[in-house]
Amino acid sequence: MATGRQLSTETAKLIDDMLQGNARALAKLITIVEEDDEEGYQVLRHISPSGKAHRVGVTGPPGAGKSTLVNRLTSFARQDGLRVGIICADPSSPFSRGAVLGDRVRMKQHYTDEGVHIRSMSTRGSLGGLPSTVHGVIKLMDASGKDLILVETVGVGQMELDVMENVDTVVVTLVPEAGDDVQAMKAGLMEIADIFAVNKADRSGAGSLVVEIQSMLNLVDRDNCWTIPVLATQAENNIGVGELYEQICHHRKTCVDSGILAERRARQRRSEFTAVLEKMVIQEFTKAISSDPRLSRYVSRMSEGKLSPYEAAEKIFSTLSQRESRNQELTQP
Amino acid sequence: MATGRQLSTETAKLIDDMLQGNARALAKLITIVEEDDEEGYQVLRHISPSGKAHRVGVTGPPGAGKSTLVNRLTSFARQDGLRVGIICADPSSPFSRGAVLGDRVRMKQHYTDEGVHIRSMSTRGSLGGLPSTVHGVIKLMDASGKDLILVETVGVGQMELDVMENVDTVVVTLVPEAGDDVQAMKAGLMEIADIFAVNKADRSGAGSLVVEIQSMLNLVDRDNCWTIPVLATQAENNIGVGELYEQICHHRKTCVDSGILAERRARQRRSEFTAVLEKMVIQEFTKAISSDPRLSRYVSRMSEGKLSPYEAAEKIFSTLSQRESRNQELTQP
Repeated sequence: MATGRQLSTETAKLIDDMLQGNARALAKLITIVEEDDEEGYQVLRHISPSGKAHRVGVTGPPGAGKSTLVNRLTSFARQDGLRVGIICADPSSPFSRGAVLGDRVRMKQHYTDEGVHIRSMSTRGSLGGLPSTVHGVIKLMDASGKDLILVETVGVGQMELDVMENVDTVVVTLVPEAGDDVQAMKAGLMEIADIFAVNKADRSGAGSLVVEIQSMLNLVDRDNCWTIPVLATQAENNIGVGELYEQICHHRKTCVDSGILAERRARQRRSEFTAVLEKMVIQEFTKAISSDPRLSRYVSRMSEGKLSPYEAAEKIFSTLSQRESRNQELTQP
Repeated sequence: MATGRQLSTETAKLIDDMLQGNARALAKLITIVEEDDEEGYQVLRHISPSGKAHRVGVTGPPGAGKSTLVNRLTSFARQDGLRVGIICADPSSPFSRGAVLGDRVRMKQHYTDEGVHIRSMSTRGSLGGLPSTVHGVIKLMDASGKDLILVETVGVGQMELDVMENVDTVVVTLVPEAGDDVQAMKAGLMEIADIFAVNKADRSGAGSLVVEIQSMLNLVDRDNCWTIPVLATQAENNIGVGELYEQICHHRKTCVDSGILAERRARQRRSEFTAVLEKMVIQEFTKAISSDPRLSRYVSRMSEGKLSPYEAAEKIFSTLSQRESRNQELTQP
C-alpha cells in the first residue's frame, strides 16, 4: 500500500473499458479488488463512483429465501430498464467442490442478460459471510454505471452489519421459525431494517409473524420520516415481490428527499476512511516490528509463553511511541 | 489504555475473591471486561489463566438446538465433578424487551448450581453474534478455576470464526435443512469442526446428512491424528449426548498428547497480542488526529466530500509517518 505507487497501464485500461460498459473489464477489476493488495488499493483509489446506484442489502437468517427474492427483484428492475449488479456469497470451499452452487441455478435467467452483473464473492474463512472487500466491489459496480446493486448476505456477524451500514436500503427477510438464536437475530435485525419481508408467507405462522414484527416496530421510536413496512411475500411463487420492489423504490425516494441519503453517504465515506487508515497503520507497525530485532524478540518470547501477550504489546508499543513523542518534541516548536 | 495505570484497589480485591472461587466477583469482573475500557484492560493484564480449562465451542446455524445441547453437556460434566463455565449470546435489545430469553429457561436447572457459571453476553450491534470481548471472558472463566468452558455461538461471520479459533475443541451442530446459505455454512463449518453433531436426529433426512458429512470429510486431508466423528444426537430427548461428551473429552486428551493443544495455545497468545497492539495503535492515531488541527481538517473535508477517503487517509498517514521516519534517523545511529 505504498502511497506513491501508480496504477499500472493495464489496470488503467481496464478502468477505461469498465467505464464504457465492458462487463469483462468490470469482472477483472472486481477480481483485482478481491485480492485486497496494492493493485486493488490503487483501483479503488482511482475510481470515483457516481454514487448514483441504489444500494440495497437483502439480509436475514439462513433458509429465508433471500436468493429467490433477489432473483425476483432483479426481474422487476429489468422491466424498469435498470442495470442491476448482484453481490452474493459464494460458498466455495475445498470441501464443497462446487456442489453447493446448485441453488444458484435459480439465478440462471439473469446470467445471459447483459444488463445484469452477478458476482459471487468467495467467503474464504468467514463462514458463509461476505468478505471485507465487498465494499470495494459495491464501489466498482456503482462506478460501472449500475442503477441498482443488490447485496445478499446472511444476517449475522459484525461483517454483515458493516455491509448493511454501507447500503442505502436494508430489506430484512424472515420466515416463521423457532429457536432462540433466530429470535436473537430478529432483535438485531429489527435495528437495521428499512423494510421487512416475511417470506414463504404460505407457511403457517406467517400471519402472526407479520403482526409480531409490526407490534415490535410500534415500540420503536425511529426518528425519521419513514414508516417501516412489513410485507408478506412468496418469492418462489412471485407473490408480493412487486409490492416489495415498489417499497424499495419508495424508500430510495424518501431518503433522497429527506437528506438521509446524503447523511448515509457521508457516514460511508468516514467508515471507508477509517478502514483505509487502520490498514496503513497496522502495515506500518508490522513492518517496524519485523525490521527491528529487539521488537521481533519480544514477539518470539511471547510466542514461547515467556512474556504475556499484554506485556509484549506494551513493550513494543512504548518503544515505538517513545520514538514518536521524542520526535514530536524535536519537530514541533 | 494508558499502559502506566495500575489496577484499582477495588478491582484487585475482586480478582483475589474470584481466585478464591467467589462467583459474584467473577460476574463483576466479567462485566468490567465487557465494558472493554481501561479497567477491563487492566483486569486482563493482571490475571494469568492457568490454561487448564478445556475450552469447547458449540457452533452451527440458527435453530440447530445448540442451547439444549450445551445444557445437556453441562449435566454430564457436572456428573464428572467438573466446574463449568457457559458463555452464550444474549439477544438483549431495546426491541426484544427480554421476551426472547424464554428459551434460556431450558438452562434453568444449572442456574442454581454453584459449580456452573452462566454468562449471557450482550450482542449489542452484532446481529446475534458474540462481541469481541468474549476472549477476555473465556480468560476470566479459566482463571477462576473452571474445568470446562462451553461457548455457544451462531456459526456465521468473522467474529464467530475468531471465537472458534480460540477454543480447543469445536463442536459443529447441524440439522437436516435446505437453503443454499445453509450449504455455504456447512462448507465453512467443515473446515473448523473437530466433532460433528447432527442434532434433531429423529427428523427425516438426518441419516443421509450424517452420511453426506462423512463423505465430505473423506475428501479432506487434515494432517493430524484426530478422526472427526459424526454423531447423531437428539438433545431434546438426551439421546447421543453422552457419546458426544465422551468424544469431547477424548479430543482433549488427543490434543494434549499430540502437542496440538500447546500449538493452539501459542496461536491464541499471538492473536491476543495482535489484537491488543492494534487497539493501542489505533487509539494513538485517533488521538494524534484529534489533537492536530491540520489533520482534523483533512477529516472534516473528507466528511464533506471535498476529499476522497483515500486521499484523506494518505495525507494523514504520510504526515504522521514522515514524523516517525525523520525521528528514526535522529534516534538511530
